Amino acid sequence: MCPKYECATEMLGKKWTGLIIRVLLGGPKRFKEIKEQIPEMSDKMLTDRMKELEHADIIKRSVYPEMPVRIEYELTEKGRGLEPVIRSIQDWGEHWC
Amino acid sequence: MCPKYECATEMLGKKWTGLIIRVLLGGPKRFKEIKEQIPEMSDKMLTDRMKELEHADIIKRSVYPEMPVRIEYELTEKGRGLEPVIRSIQDWGEHWC
Repeated sequence: MCPKYECATEMLGKKWTGLIIRVLLGGPKRFKEIKEQIPEMSDKMLTDRMKELEHADIIKRSVYPEMPVRIEYELTEKGRGLEPVIRSIQDWGEHWC
Repeated sequence: MCPKYECATEMLGKKWTGLIIRVLLGGPKRFKEIKEQIPEMSDKMLTDRMKELEHADIIKRSVYPEMPVRIEYELTEKGRGLEPVIRSIQDWGEHWC
């Protein structure tokens, strides 16, 4: 079978990952703003997932040297490429779940 | 967040599930034929996943009373509805993985 397909699903299949990407499709967000939209997810879980997504080059973390420091997360080009995936999953879910 | 989205990713996120559906998009298959296309997956794993997919009404199991008995698995309408999802995941994987 196709290793590229497995590579894609390995990341997307993790719990919360799709939801985090969906929130970030709405534009750059701070940690707290992401958390507010997925309240059932623990801080530790969100931190772990964000690190994985950053490592996979799906999200980018930007630090703005303001006072207090502002840290924002946004999708990279690779991450924005997931929009059709997220949308097709959602369409299917609305019809069938 | 949207429970329908979570419901969809919960199923699709399991290891092998996407690959099994992809194989079945090619038409009805016997257990052995699915196995041949995903050789790294154990028989037990395939059996478990097929039961889950049948329970979720994504695949249908048909028994043909021939000699020897023929058992085939095929996608239901709900299962075929996953084609855009699988295709978009694959497109992304080919570009980015």
